[in-house]
This record gives sequence, C-alpha cells and structure tokens, in this order.
Amino acid sequence: MAKAGPVSKFAPATLPEIPPIDGVRFAAGMAGVRYSRRVDVMLALFDEGTRVAGVFTRSKCPSAPVDWCRARLSAGKARALLVNSGNANAFTGRLGRDAVKLSAELVAKAAQASERQIFLASTGVIGEPLDATKFERVLPKLVKTASPDAWHDAARAIMTTDTFPKLATRSAEIGGVEVRIAGFSKGAGMIAPDMATMLAFVFTDAPIGAEALQVLLSRSVRDSFNAITVDSDTSTSDTLLLFATGAAAARGAPQIDKASDARLDGFAAALDSLLLELAHQVVKDGEGARKFVEVRVSGAVNARAAKRIALSIANSPLVKTAIAGEDANWGRVVMAVGKSGEEADRDKLAIWFGDTRVAYKGQRDPSYDEAAVSEIMKRDEIKLAVDLGIGPGAATVWTCDLTKEYVAINGDYRS
Amino acid sequence: MAKAGPVSKFAPATLPEIPPIDGVRFAAGMAGVRYSRRVDVMLALFDEGTRVAGVFTRSKCPSAPVDWCRARLSAGKARALLVNSGNANAFTGRLGRDAVKLSAELVAKAAQASERQIFLASTGVIGEPLDATKFERVLPKLVKTASPDAWHDAARAIMTTDTFPKLATRSAEIGGVEVRIAGFSKGAGMIAPDMATMLAFVFTDAPIGAEALQVLLSRSVRDSFNAITVDSDTSTSDTLLLFATGAAAARGAPQIDKASDARLDGFAAALDSLLLELAHQVVKDGEGARKFVEVRVSGAVNARAAKRIALSIANSPLVKTAIAGEDANWGRVVMAVGKSGEEADRDKLAIWFGDTRVAYKGQRDPSYDEAAVSEIMKRDEIKLAVDLGIGPGAATVWTCDLTKEYVAINGDYRS
Repeated sequence: MAKAGPVSKFAPATLPEIPPIDGVRFAAGMAGVRYSRRVDVMLALFDEGTRVAGVFTRSKCPSAPVDWCRARLSAGKARALLVNSGNANAFTGRLGRDAVKLSAELVAKAAQASERQIFLASTGVIGEPLDATKFERVLPKLVKTASPDAWHDAARAIMTTDTFPKLATRSAEIGGVEVRIAGFSKGAGMIAPDMATMLAFVFTDAPIGAEALQVLLSRSVRDSFNAITVDSDTSTSDTLLLFATGAAAARGAPQIDKASDARLDGFAAALDSLLLELAHQVVKDGEGARKFVEVRVSGAVNARAAKRIALSIANSPLVKTAIAGEDANWGRVVMAVGKSGEEADRDKLAIWFGDTRVAYKGQRDPSYDEAAVSEIMKRDEIKLAVDLGIGPGAATVWTCDLTKEYVAINGDYRS
Repeated sequence: MAKAGPVSKFAPATLPEIPPIDGVRFAAGMAGVRYSRRVDVMLALFDEGTRVAGVFTRSKCPSAPVDWCRARLSAGKARALLVNSGNANAFTGRLGRDAVKLSAELVAKAAQASERQIFLASTGVIGEPLDATKFERVLPKLVKTASPDAWHDAARAIMTTDTFPKLATRSAEIGGVEVRIAGFSKGAGMIAPDMATMLAFVFTDAPIGAEALQVLLSRSVRDSFNAITVDSDTSTSDTLLLFATGAAAARGAPQIDKASDARLDGFAAALDSLLLELAHQVVKDGEGARKFVEVRVSGAVNARAAKRIALSIANSPLVKTAIAGEDANWGRVVMAVGKSGEEADRDKLAIWFGDTRVAYKGQRDPSYDEAAVSEIMKRDEIKLAVDLGIGPGAATVWTCDLTKEYVAINGDYRS
C-alpha cells in the first residue's frame, strides 16, 4: 500500500449523515491484518430474511473472497458481511480458499448464523496469505458492539489508499411506503471497468426478492461503477453487494419479487442515483487526481461502440496528462477515438470542452475562443464531449487526470 | 510538442555508421514548418525501378499522408519520400488532402518524377493545417544536395520528442550476393500497436518485387513494431515504409518476386533483426523511460492470447509505475493477466523477474530470494516472464516504465 498523501481536493468538508437502515448493524475494529493499531476490519450484521445481490470483477484471476461470494449468491440470503483491508487474499491459492472458509466459520459462530449466509471481501496487497485466525479475537466484540449508526466507522474501515470515506443515501417509495437505501464504497487506484478496484456495499430495508434485486443491481451498475476508470487497471477483488433486509415490510411496504414490477421504478431510480454518486466519489478520490472528467460520446454506431470510444479517451495517458496540464489538447482526443477500433469518420467528428466546440467536420473549429477554453481547463470538473455524427449510440464515462502524484503513489514506495 | 528534456540513458555513445544503399540518396533541410531554424524536413530520392511496401496505423482517424501513401502503395513503385516534423497533417480535413496533393506535386516537380511515386509522412501536432507551400523553397536545394551518406542528418530530421536518432543496418545474401538493408525510425510517445507513433523508413538494394516485399514487411512487423508499447496510445500517423532499389542486381543478385522463395530466407531474417533493433530503440527513447522491459508470456491457449496478455501487462500503469519504483510487484502482474480477458488459471500461473521465479501455482514462490530480485529491479533492462501453464501460445513484447517525467513531458507544456 502507498504512503498516505494529502487528502483529495474533492473530499467533502463533512461526511453525510446516513440514517439507519432497519435490520442492518455495523461495527469496525482492529484485527492487525497488516498493520497493528489500524482499523482494518468491518462487520455488517443483517436480520433474518435479508436478501442479497452482487456484481464482481471480470478478472480471470479473481480473489478467494470473490470466488466465495459468487458461490453463495445463488441462494440469495445473507446474515453477515466481513470486510478487511490490508490484504486482498488474491492469488493465494489453497491458502486463500482455506482463509475464506475459516473466516466464514468464525463469523458464522460469532453471529450465530449459517456459514452459507456469510459474505466476505478483502482489499489490500495481492499474493500474501491472509491469516484469518486474526479475526477470531475481534469478532465477538464486533458482534456485541454492532450499531445501526456506525456508518462512518464502517466506511473508514474498508479504505486503503482512499483519502476520504465515500458514503451516500437515498430514499424512494414502494407502494406508498418510504424505503431507504444507503451505502459506502472504497477504491482509489486499479479502477477500471469491469469493475473498479473497488468495494461497495449498499443496504436497503426494501422487501425485494433476491432475483429482482440482482436484476436491478446488474442494470444499475452498467452506467455507474462500470462507467468509471482511474487507470484502466482492473482489480482481482472488485465486489459490489446489495443487501435488502425487507424491514420496511413491517411499515407496510409490499414484498416485490419481479424486477419488472412498476412499483420498483422509484426504487430503481434511487439506486441508480446512489450508485452513481458512490462511483463518482471513487473517481474523485482517484490516486493523484486533481480533475474530475466527464467524457460523453454521442453519434456512434451504437451504445456499445460509444462506451468503448469513451473509455478509450478516458484511459488514454496522453489525454489524461494533457488534462493534468490544463491543455485542451483535442488532437489527443482524435487519437483516442481513432485507436478505439470503433467506426469513426474523421470528417464528421466534433469535439467540445465544456460548451465550447473546438473541432468540427475533420478540422479545428475556426470560431473557437482559446481564452474561453483555457478557463474551462482550469476548473476542477471538466466535461469533454465527442460527437461522431454517424449513428444513435451514446455513452458517458467518468475519469480523472493522470498526474505525477499518481506515479509517486504507485512507484515511490516499498511494499 | 514537448520541451526538450535530458537525453535518454539508452542513447548510444556514438551513432552507428551506415553504409550507403545503392540507389538511395538523402537530404535534410529547414522548411520552417512549425519553428524556424530547425531541421524539419527530410527528402529521400530513389533510382528508377525502386519498389515499396508499407504498413500503417490502424487508427480509424488516420492522417492525410497515411491516406495518401495507402492509395499509392498498390502500384508498388517509389521515386521519392518527403517527411516533415512539426506538423502531423492529421485531422485537417479538406485542407489536409490539399496539402498532401501539393506536397507530392512539388516533390515530383523538383525530383522530375511522377506524383504517383512520391511518398509522404508527417509527424508533429494534430489538427493544425500544414502549409505545404513551405516545401517549395527548400526542395530544389534538397534534390541538388542529396547524398548517399546523409543517414544521420536524415534520421535527425524526423525527430520530435525523440532524444536520439535511431539507426540500424544489416546485410544478407541473396543468391550468393551480398545485399544491404538500413533504416531509421522515430517515436517517443503515443507508441502502441498497431503501430506505434512512429515513423520508420527502411531501404535496401535487394531486387525484390513489391508484392513479396509487402509480405516480408507485414510478417516482420508483427514481432517488432507491433510488439512494442510506450503508453498504449496509437497515433494517427504511424508509417513504416520499406524501399527496395534493386541496385544489387547489377552485382549479380537475382530478382525475386515471391516471398516464399527460399533464397529470401537470409534477407527476411536480417529484416526481422533490423526492425526489432529499430523498434527497441523507439521503446528505449520512450518519453520519460528509465527502464527497458521485456514481457514474455508463454503457456497461453494460443499466440494471439499470449500477445494480448503480454500487452495487458506492458500497458498497465500499475505494473509500469512499480517497475519505475524498482519493485517486483508481481501482484500487479497477476492483476494485468486477469484483466486481459484471456483464459487464465490462477492456480497454474508462474511469474519470473529475471531468472527468479516469484510466484508459482497460484501463490508466492516460497523459495524466492527477495534480495536477488531487488538487484534485478535496479537494472536498466528488466525481463518479466509469465507462464500460464494451459497451452502452447507464446509472445514477447517490449515496453518501458511509467515515470513522473512521462507526465511532465506530456502535461507540463503549453502547445
């Protein structure tokens, strides 16, 4: 892990207050996974009947906890979630599988739940065996002290190179009853679809069946966590879990088991909005980031092509260093469009920084005002738009600039 | 273009002496394309009967000179090559097409050759119209002073952010007669397959037909210029041209028109070796590079998968920053294997830095000596090998580290 650097300029002045979600309690503690006297473990406990959905890294070399969660997901039931930082338990072979099994057994025992309803996530160094026996000592205390209000502690416990905890909350109505959604995420480097190096845990009291929950989550992630990139690198450990306790049923919310049920429309919109906010916070805390960049591509042959082009721009080191240097270098944007491999017609391409069109129909826009663009590039948040002019496909992704601090964080260390 | 920085540590102490290639003459001059009093134009003149083959960027937004060369290549005949730095004539629309047409007319007039046998390449800023009338003044002098010995001047004239000229020479026998091959390249950033931002021009006196030449070139480029990456960014302008004057026929070398002719085996091997040397020099002069890195992947399901995995490793910002920091961070190599999307079995993966195996069968190699690996990482040239253990596919690519200087060169400037 990198040394602690300065806090991101995008860190909120104060953390948002997150209301409790009925049926969820949190606790954080120090298990000494990698460093002593550091909060490195987070336990979430769920009331009986909690349903769960998940989305994971598409890495072909996933971590042991990812394998574990995937296997547990089909039953769709959850009683606890244990997350540690300091060690990713990735590329740890047989020892890694033993460690997740032991972790789940220890949590099951402490929480008096079935081992099959325990979910696990780990973040930190890759390749080091994780000593799961370290959890044994802290688990009873975590179970005992778990509280519905410990959101900030929980969000902090899962941080690695993050410079601020990332939290968000929303509410929606289902059948006229208010339900709540809240969650937190971490991730600062090794962030790219699909997914980012990224852990995110979202909780709701809505009474939604596991299958419907999975459909909503998979759909929502496409334009949020799977539309961000810090450095094009995809982690072995990415995990997004959505837990629904169903506790709002006691207040009259109807149980819903089909994702297509129109009564879920408000919930789905709130979930989309919450995941997008958490994903944006991940990019804003991107390693070394000083600019938050929206890349919007339109006019591509289809949405898939638009997203590939947007990611080609968002991942280009030359585009990202130009943005770090506050230069509206649209030539590099053309380059990134061209290298994406997707259909493009140079003579129909238009490019905007902010609201200013800088290139049009295959050449520099003769009317553009360099001074205005120069002002735009000094902002913390920059919008870059490309229209290909050949079809209806559109997509938006978010990224940050590439700075010397990124190189310092990832190169100037000894692990 | 970036400001001039320090010369690469990999720059040769003295430039290699390149013997003349019969039928080829060079001249360099100052056309004032972007800056005055800077050598920015290079002319090569070829004797009648010269054949040509070429490989170009796969960008969907290629530059005007790339479009021009592609269209001229089918006839396979060349009398002159004009290359300028300072302006890429890319994304310049109708003005760009007019500029290449005028350039070719001017060269044809000065060299008394057909406009259809003039080849063009441009490197430099994207999106600025190229004023081709600037060539008119210098061309007569270039034609008059062209010399078979002006290799170093020619190689220097095409440099942009390069810190040293890149030249190489080989000889081979065809039918018992010695033939020569020599060439030069440029390219320091925006280097990725296929191809790099990269110009390379290679010349031979071998009497080889244009079709056979094209087959040899396309084959040779696969494991040389299409196996290097500096920053994963692909230029709009990449051009590799191979000119064969046929002058060795006067010394008894047989004319060969089929690439499969066994008499070309020695020539093909020499061409492979020469292109690889030029490609390696491009990586060694990569922007900000301090380490030259070979990434060898074996045991993949097939060669294509091996190359994709190798490029995933070679393009990973986290792998490249770790190498800049002299850390044998094989966890990031696992990450890059996993994100490639190619088949991999974590529990069969093995990773080496230099000759030291650091990971094996899904976990850290228990026997590896950290001190030995630490010494390896301090070297200027580092070999990284990955065996997937699941098939016969192998590939090797070359890259450099990612340093703060790369960010400085590409971000700390005002264009």
